[in-house]
Amino acid sequence: MENNILEKVKYNHHGLVPAIAQDVESGRVLMMAWMNEESLKLTLETRRAHYFSRSRKKLWLKGETSGHFQDVVDMALDCDGDTILMRVHQTGAACHNGTFSCFEQPLLESEEEMGGDSRVLQELYDVIADR
Amino acid sequence: MENNILEKVKYNHHGLVPAIAQDVESGRVLMMAWMNEESLKLTLETRRAHYFSRSRKKLWLKGETSGHFQDVVDMALDCDGDTILMRVHQTGAACHNGTFSCFEQPLLESEEEMGGDSRVLQELYDVIADR
Repeated sequence: MENNILEKVKYNHHGLVPAIAQDVESGRVLMMAWMNEESLKLTLETRRAHYFSRSRKKLWLKGETSGHFQDVVDMALDCDGDTILMRVHQTGAACHNGTFSCFEQPLLESEEEMGGDSRVLQELYDVIADR
Repeated sequence: MENNILEKVKYNHHGLVPAIAQDVESGRVLMMAWMNEESLKLTLETRRAHYFSRSRKKLWLKGETSGHFQDVVDMALDCDGDTILMRVHQTGAACHNGTFSCFEQPLLESEEEMGGDSRVLQELYDVIADR
């Protein structure tokens, strides 16, 4: 399967493809970074997320210096082959700022205090706590 | 808040920024597409996801022809300001292929039959069902 599907990955003109990391336990989207062919192959082989740093222009094993590795559970390619989604076990914090997710700057707030998914989980916990 | 934070959005040299859409009920990552400044502003104003189609080179209200709108619950910018995350209520299917998510081509399968999050939820349901 892998060899076949790997041919479907469409790299941009810099030879890079965006990869989204999602925490498998919480479902939270952690970060989006870029992979070249080498980092994608290393990620598939080692089941640890490897990216390509556009600023440092080099292969980058996530967690290499921080210890905050991303152990990959599964990976999927999108319909047009130009974006990768990884579900990972995140050790520590995904963000170099120390937050669990990199998406911590609100652009638009929820109209309700709590979003739908949090509410559903909260209700589940309440049901369990009540019993 | 919005005006201030909007200045932090870093568009690439095509004037675009990637935007990830996540379904707020299931937590599933649905798709990644691109926004220009106009589509970002329209998304913030209308709370409906607008993108910029790179192939058609035009503004694109998601669901305009299919009816599969994405109603935005909240939006966040990542630490370096170059990726947006939207949590949405997805009407119908996010993918033009008819699947709920665009990420349907496996690149790497889970080593277990079920991923961690499914297992946790399954255990929660089992606890509730048992009582």
